[in-house]
Amino acid sequence: MLDLPFLPFCVLLGGLGFVCVAFASAWCQHWRGGFAWDGSAQMFNWHPVLMVTGMVVLYGAAALVYRLPPAWSGPKLPWKVLHGTLALVAFGLAVLGLVAVFRFHNHNGTPNMYSLHSWLGLATILLFSCQWLAGFSAFLLPWAPTWLRALYKPVHVFFGSTILMLSVASCMSGINEKLFFSLKNGTMEYKRLPAEAVFANTLGLLILLFGVLVLGALARPSWKRPDADSPDSCQPLLAAER
Amino acid sequence: MLDLPFLPFCVLLGGLGFVCVAFASAWCQHWRGGFAWDGSAQMFNWHPVLMVTGMVVLYGAAALVYRLPPAWSGPKLPWKVLHGTLALVAFGLAVLGLVAVFRFHNHNGTPNMYSLHSWLGLATILLFSCQWLAGFSAFLLPWAPTWLRALYKPVHVFFGSTILMLSVASCMSGINEKLFFSLKNGTMEYKRLPAEAVFANTLGLLILLFGVLVLGALARPSWKRPDADSPDSCQPLLAAER
Repeated sequence: MLDLPFLPFCVLLGGLGFVCVAFASAWCQHWRGGFAWDGSAQMFNWHPVLMVTGMVVLYGAAALVYRLPPAWSGPKLPWKVLHGTLALVAFGLAVLGLVAVFRFHNHNGTPNMYSLHSWLGLATILLFSCQWLAGFSAFLLPWAPTWLRALYKPVHVFFGSTILMLSVASCMSGINEKLFFSLKNGTMEYKRLPAEAVFANTLGLLILLFGVLVLGALARPSWKRPDADSPDSCQPLLAAER
Repeated sequence: MLDLPFLPFCVLLGGLGFVCVAFASAWCQHWRGGFAWDGSAQMFNWHPVLMVTGMVVLYGAAALVYRLPPAWSGPKLPWKVLHGTLALVAFGLAVLGLVAVFRFHNHNGTPNMYSLHSWLGLATILLFSCQWLAGFSAFLLPWAPTWLRALYKPVHVFFGSTILMLSVASCMSGINEKLFFSLKNGTMEYKRLPAEAVFANTLGLLILLFGVLVLGALARPSWKRPDADSPDSCQPLLAAER
């Protein structure tokens, strides 16, 4: 029962990730007026879509690269490059997502960075930028000594899961906040639970499920690269490629 | 550097937990009118205090019981009882926290269970109740067979961390939501970041830090009970006491 193979799980997870992005897009397209890049509310709409795509779905894909059985043998470098590239694309989308909300606020004279959601979200992205730079410096550049890689690896792994957790918490508070902003008139009040509220709440729960499944997959011992905890996995790049 | 002893960490973590509860109480006492148990807004104020105390601080304490060095040797039963009791008290406070918000809503004709915060929070507490019952049945009642304990233990451990993560996400969305509800007039608007907003946002970040420190402590291999992953740790109760 517990010996679920990784690849079918990946297909299901990929499907769930696609559904999350599709739900975020459909919410903004169908109920919030669609998309634009002009400082309007339609520009804000890129924020949830880019954040869910980058900080949840692509981030989750990047985190799971080393769980793919083909990554268990042969040279590690291509998998490191794939892991770093997916994370970099996720980071790029998150930065675009920030641009969308900051330009929307500035265009409308709304202050930035006052809500707990904004503090949490920015802290998450700052932590992610540190994580990416430290990971790149320690594991992809050839000059980091073995002892430093061995010391840093568990820290990188821990913050990898932590940043995903923070991303999911940011999404929850952001969706909740957006619904309170948008649904406040007559029959469309959030507390009357109109169709949009049910749809976006469901999106929140799907994002949560995606995050928990990724964290579960990362924690599962039988899916870990066999050498994941051995000093060998922390060898310098050139040694790893021998 | 990485060999921080567990007990000083515990003292710091306990201090941080105390600060979280004190901040939640001070927020409600100083800015939100204090406490009552009469269906009013003062009754609602018990909700954040009880949730932070139960689902974050006491829950975190319960999760870390087996990391205490005295729990590493001798009979395991007293530590199991302590773990289960702390979790039960945490659950009791959470139920009281739910009563506070449901009675406040009912007293004021506000619908229940419409926001994503409420869906997330209730899902967290339902999952916690399943976790407690399954843990009690498998690890404290004497009739669960060894193979069942061995099978269930990693699931219990994983959901232990997951529920804490969901609790923290619930707190983030709840504090954010409450500030949007409460701060909406003139100079007291949330977006003008009055003192209350800075204080409650800081509470959110402190709760986040507490959660991340607990998850970090749980993940740290050198703080795990030495037999934590051996089949021996899953022995039946009577065998464990031999």
